[in-house]
Amino acid sequence: MHEQLKEKVLEANLALVKHKLVIFTWGNASEMDPETGHIVIKPSGVAYERMTAGDMLVLDGDGNQIEGKLKPSSDAPTHVALYKQFKGIGGVVHTHSEWATSWAQAGLPLPPFGTTHADYFYGAVPCARPLTKEEVEGDYELNTGNVIVETFSGLDHLAIPGVLVHGHGPFTWGKDGADAVHNSVVLEEVAKMAFRNRVLGKQEPIEQFLLDKHYQRKHGDNSYYGQA
Amino acid sequence: MHEQLKEKVLEANLALVKHKLVIFTWGNASEMDPETGHIVIKPSGVAYERMTAGDMLVLDGDGNQIEGKLKPSSDAPTHVALYKQFKGIGGVVHTHSEWATSWAQAGLPLPPFGTTHADYFYGAVPCARPLTKEEVEGDYELNTGNVIVETFSGLDHLAIPGVLVHGHGPFTWGKDGADAVHNSVVLEEVAKMAFRNRVLGKQEPIEQFLLDKHYQRKHGDNSYYGQA
Amino acid sequence: MHEQLKEKVLEANLALVKHKLVIFTWGNASEMDPETGHIVIKPSGVAYERMTAGDMLVLDGDGNQIEGKLKPSSDAPTHVALYKQFKGIGGVVHTHSEWATSWAQAGLPLPPFGTTHADYFYGAVPCARPLTKEEVEGDYELNTGNVIVETFSGLDHLAIPGVLVHGHGPFTWGKDGADAVHNSVVLEEVAKMAFRNRVLGKQEPIEQFLLDKHYQRKHGDNSYYGQA
Amino acid sequence: MHEQLKEKVLEANLALVKHKLVIFTWGNASEMDPETGHIVIKPSGVAYERMTAGDMLVLDGDGNQIEGKLKPSSDAPTHVALYKQFKGIGGVVHTHSEWATSWAQAGLPLPPFGTTHADYFYGAVPCARPLTKEEVEGDYELNTGNVIVETFSGLDHLAIPGVLVHGHGPFTWGKDGADAVHNSVVLEEVAKMAFRNRVLGKQEPIEQFLLDKHYQRKHGDNSYYGQA
Repeated sequence: MHEQLKEKVLEANLALVKHKLVIFTWGNASEMDPETGHIVIKPSGVAYERMTAGDMLVLDGDGNQIEGKLKPSSDAPTHVALYKQFKGIGGVVHTHSEWATSWAQAGLPLPPFGTTHADYFYGAVPCARPLTKEEVEGDYELNTGNVIVETFSGLDHLAIPGVLVHGHGPFTWGKDGADAVHNSVVLEEVAKMAFRNRVLGKQEPIEQFLLDKHYQRKHGDNSYYGQA
Repeated sequence: MHEQLKEKVLEANLALVKHKLVIFTWGNASEMDPETGHIVIKPSGVAYERMTAGDMLVLDGDGNQIEGKLKPSSDAPTHVALYKQFKGIGGVVHTHSEWATSWAQAGLPLPPFGTTHADYFYGAVPCARPLTKEEVEGDYELNTGNVIVETFSGLDHLAIPGVLVHGHGPFTWGKDGADAVHNSVVLEEVAKMAFRNRVLGKQEPIEQFLLDKHYQRKHGDNSYYGQA
Repeated sequence: MHEQLKEKVLEANLALVKHKLVIFTWGNASEMDPETGHIVIKPSGVAYERMTAGDMLVLDGDGNQIEGKLKPSSDAPTHVALYKQFKGIGGVVHTHSEWATSWAQAGLPLPPFGTTHADYFYGAVPCARPLTKEEVEGDYELNTGNVIVETFSGLDHLAIPGVLVHGHGPFTWGKDGADAVHNSVVLEEVAKMAFRNRVLGKQEPIEQFLLDKHYQRKHGDNSYYGQA
Repeated sequence: MHEQLKEKVLEANLALVKHKLVIFTWGNASEMDPETGHIVIKPSGVAYERMTAGDMLVLDGDGNQIEGKLKPSSDAPTHVALYKQFKGIGGVVHTHSEWATSWAQAGLPLPPFGTTHADYFYGAVPCARPLTKEEVEGDYELNTGNVIVETFSGLDHLAIPGVLVHGHGPFTWGKDGADAVHNSVVLEEVAKMAFRNRVLGKQEPIEQFLLDKHYQRKHGDNSYYGQA
C-alpha cells in the first residue's frame, strides 16, 4: 500500500540528513496521501543509513497503524494532530536542527529580521507555550500537537508553515514531505541569521510592507518569482 | 547569441553554490558583454543542479529580454540598474549568504576591521538606506538598484565593489561575473570576522594608512601583489 | 588477545574523527572486556590515519599493560580510574571537542536547556572542580579520574554519562566504546545549543517533569522510543 | 636546487587549504634548508590548485631570490626576518584563518584558557603592537617581521610558536614547514574556543601549574606524551 509514497517519505527523511538538520535518529518526516488521508511515517529509532522504503509505516487519519511491522516514530501523534487540524497540509517534519532548536530552547519566537524570512514565513515563527505538567505526563506527543494548533489560533498556518516547540525543537509542514523539508531548511537558515542579529543588537522586525512584498513575490495570485 | 558568455555565467552561478554562498535558488550572477552591452543572467527559481548554459537569458542594456524562453531572475532589474549606472563593471552577484546577510538584516555597514577587508574593499562596505513604502510597492527591484547607486554617491564603486541592501542581503560586482563572485566570497569572510570583532568589543576600523597600504598593495599602479 | 575488541576500539576511535570531535591525536576511546575486566585502549600520539587494530594496547583492571609494544594513551590512568569506580560502564571516551571543551574551559556545568539534552543526560552535565597543584603535579591522570568520580558523589553516573573536566575537556562513558562515542557526539551538540541559549539570555533549565518525560521515554522500564 | 624541499613546501601550502585555514591565495608556508640557510617559499598570488613544486622559489638567507621565475609571496620579507632572528626555527606559516584573524583584528592576545592551548603554546599567544605609519609606508613586510621579533623580547619563541599581527592575522613557526602548519591549526582551534570562553564570561587563564604540566607533558626532557 502506498509504495510510491513510502519512497517519497524515505527520501524526505534522508534529505533531512543531507541538509544536516538531523544526526542519529533525531528527526522524522511524514506525508499524507490526499485521497485516503493515510499518513506514511518513518519508524522510531532506526538508523537513517539502514532505513528502506519498506520500513515506512502507514497510519490512518486517527493515527492507528494499518501497515508495517515496526513501531512508528514516537512523534507520530504530533504529526497526526497536525494533519487533522491544519487544513491543506500534506507533509510534516520534526527535527532537532541546531539553530531552530536553540531558539526553541530559549523559548523565543523567531522574528522576521529580513527578506529571506519573509520569502517563506509571513510573520514571526511562533514559539508555542510550554506544556503543563499534566500535558507532559499525559498524552505527551498528542498534546504537543494540540499546543501547536493552539499557537496558531489567529494565525494562518499555511502562511507560516512552522513552529518552535518550547524547550524542544521545530516542526514544519508543507504541501508534501519534500516541501516540509524545504521549510525546515529555510527555518534553520533564518534562525541562524536572526541569532546573529540579536548579537548585533537588532530588535525590530522588517517593515510590514517589505514583509508583504517578499511574501507576495513568491506566494499568491500576484507572485512573480520562479517560472510560471 | 553569446554562447561563451552563457557558459561563464552558468559557471559563476555554480561557483556561488560551491563557495556555500547560496542554497536552493537564493542567488544570482550575471555578466555584461562589453561590446554589445547585453546582459546574460540566470533564470528565476530554477534549481542550480538542473541549470544549463542554454537556460541563461539575454537582456539588452535596458533590461528587455532579447533571448531565452525562461523568465530571468526576479532581481534582474537591480542588475540592469547597476550596469547602467556603475561605469566599468562587467559582473554582478546577489546572494543571501549567511554572514553578509546578517549584517544587512542588522542594517549596519561593515567596517574595515582588518587587512583582509582592506585587500579588497577600500573602506567600509556601506549598508543602503531602507527603501520607502513607495519604493517597495512600486518598481521594487529597480528601486533597489537605484538606492544602491544613491548609496555610492561620494564613494568609488570600483574601490568598494559591494553593498549591503538593508534588511535583505549583499550585492557585489566586479570586472566580470567570476570577479563579482570572488568579491562575494571575500565579503562573506570579512563579515564573519567583523561579527566576532564586534563580540570581542572592537569598534574602531584599522588606521587609514594601513588600509591604504593593503588596498594599494593589490590595486593600482604601484601594486606589487601577485605575478606582474 | 581480544582481537575483536581491538577492532571495536579502533572503530570507536575512528568514529571520533568521523564525527569531527577529534583533530590530530586529541582524543581516545577505550572499551573494557566484561569477562576479564581487561581494558583495550589506543596508543599515545599515533595518527588516526595510520592506526591499526594491532596497535591497540591491553591493560589489566589496574592499568598494567599486559599486551602491545606501543605506549598507551597518556590518559589511560583516567580511563582505568573510571572503569574501576563507575559500576556498569564498558566504554570511555575523552576528546577536546570544540563546544564541550569551551564549556569545560569556562568551568561551567552544562544545564539541561532542552529535550535533546534530556533524551541522554538526566540533569546538568557537571563540571569537575579544578585539580589542586598537588593533584596536577602528582599522579595527574589518575587524579583526573578520581576528581571525576568525586564529582559524581550524589549523582548517578549511568543517568549522566559524561563530565566536563575543568580547564581541559569532556569525558563520556557508556555500555561500550561505541556508546561512549555516541554520548560524546550528543554532549557536543547540546553544548553548542546551550552556548547559544546563554547568548540569547536563557538561564533556567527545562522543567523537571519535561526532563523526566524525555529521559524516561528513552530509558528504563517504561521507555517507548525505538524498536522494542 | 632543493627539489625535495620544494615538494615539502608545496605540501605544507596545500595542507593549509586542506585544514581550511586558507581560501584563494591568502596564506603562505615556507621552509629553510638547515645546511645552506636557503628559504623555499611559494609564489605570490598563484592559485593553490595550479601550484606545482616547480613554482616554489628559493631565497638566500637575506631574502635575495636565487632561483625561480615567479615572484615570491609578498610576505617573504616577513618570513626572512623571522628565520634570521628566531634561532632554531625551520618553517614559517602565515594565514588569514578566520578565528586567529578575528583575535588579531581585535588587537587582543590569546589567553591560555585551557589545556589544549597549554599542550602547544606555553603562555598567551601575544598580539604584536600596531605598526606605525612610518613602518607601514616603509619596508612594510620587513617591518612586520621586526615587530614580531620585538614582541618576543622576553618571551621564548620556541615555547610560543605563534603571534597575532595587529589588524592583520597570525604567523606561526616550527621546526619545519609541516610543524608550522600544525601550529597554525592548533592556534585556530584554541582561538575558536577562547572566543566562546569570552562570550561565556571567562577572563582568567588556567593556573600556571596546569599550564606547566600540559606543556611539559609534550615538550622537554620529562615529556611522556606520544611514542618515545
